[in-house]
Amino acid sequence: MKLFNYWRSSASYRVRLALGFKGLPYEYVAVNLAKGEQHDAAHAQRNPWHGVPVLEVMEERQAVQLTQSVAIVEYLEERYPTPPLFPTGAVARARMRAMVEVVNSGIQPLHNLQVNNYVKDVLKGDPKAWAATWIDKGLDALEALAKQSAGAFMVGDQFTFADACLLPQLYGARRFASVDPSRVPTLARIEATCFTLGFVQQAKPESQPDAVAA
Amino acid sequence: MKLFNYWRSSASYRVRLALGFKGLPYEYVAVNLAKGEQHDAAHAQRNPWHGVPVLEVMEERQAVQLTQSVAIVEYLEERYPTPPLFPTGAVARARMRAMVEVVNSGIQPLHNLQVNNYVKDVLKGDPKAWAATWIDKGLDALEALAKQSAGAFMVGDQFTFADACLLPQLYGARRFASVDPSRVPTLARIEATCFTLGFVQQAKPESQPDAVAA
Repeated sequence: MKLFNYWRSSASYRVRLALGFKGLPYEYVAVNLAKGEQHDAAHAQRNPWHGVPVLEVMEERQAVQLTQSVAIVEYLEERYPTPPLFPTGAVARARMRAMVEVVNSGIQPLHNLQVNNYVKDVLKGDPKAWAATWIDKGLDALEALAKQSAGAFMVGDQFTFADACLLPQLYGARRFASVDPSRVPTLARIEATCFTLGFVQQAKPESQPDAVAA
Repeated sequence: MKLFNYWRSSASYRVRLALGFKGLPYEYVAVNLAKGEQHDAAHAQRNPWHGVPVLEVMEERQAVQLTQSVAIVEYLEERYPTPPLFPTGAVARARMRAMVEVVNSGIQPLHNLQVNNYVKDVLKGDPKAWAATWIDKGLDALEALAKQSAGAFMVGDQFTFADACLLPQLYGARRFASVDPSRVPTLARIEATCFTLGFVQQAKPESQPDAVAA
């Protein structure tokens, strides 16, 4: 498998966590979002949405490009079910997917690079204040949901896809604002637990080959 | 089952389509977003994200509230697999979920009510121009993806969850801009096909008990 991704992209980070959790090896291909490489013709061919990550997999001896982090992780769970990244039981999975979507559709889309640039360049707004508005609202909801389902991790005592969304969201949030652990104690505790895991250390942005020192 | 929803909410419309496709009866409970009822204490208890839809289901004789349209539809597909709303094959499902997420995380979050209000009230921007920017970009990507997988519907010749996301997105888009069929011919053709289906007619915003004439 080949993962077209970017060290600091939170959707890329989610997929790296899923691959690492399942012990699946992959070739790392950097797409530099800061330089606009997602708009190159070669990448637009891979993903008409012009985004990362793209996971290229072999299916029936053909290379297939998969896009959108949630779709990619659902695919990985179907094709490589062991170890499971999803909990047992339809209700537990629904709760997990709800938390995934609070991050994936509720928070992150509102503070990604292109949206922040539009707020700054076209609307002459403050992208940090803009981002903080949606991050604060979203993390409050995520904390409330996590309280209903968490054990050591977001759903019970096993690392799931919800944890693989939490870590990138907290990382992304800190680029715009400080995250007060006393406001989101459940999320902060779970994040600390996740960072004791080896595959998490390997998946985090700073560990990637295209990472640039701040 | 009880569906807490709002006639014009596109995430609500997605779930109504999924329930209708599967022939599942439900009690319709209106939550008036225009009046801010999603922030009432009773609703915040159902959904800390303060959003619709919420699907209340009975599991082991207990009422359980499920949130986030994608999580709800994945749950319905797991619990009520027949007729299937998802295609056969891991790659086809991944393509379907990618299109679902282009709508669910790529377009709709950027032009929902609260975001448009922030653009208008805080940033003093034009919410129509704002919304049209993201809708145009998103529908172009969705058209390109649909071209790769469509038959009569978004993925092959069966109605799937991707179609249940397309219809609300086109409906939402027209609140802000005209949708030029010549720019998105595949999407326009599929929309017309969908509107020949009885459950689609029943699920559409104008058919709901809380619909208000424009």
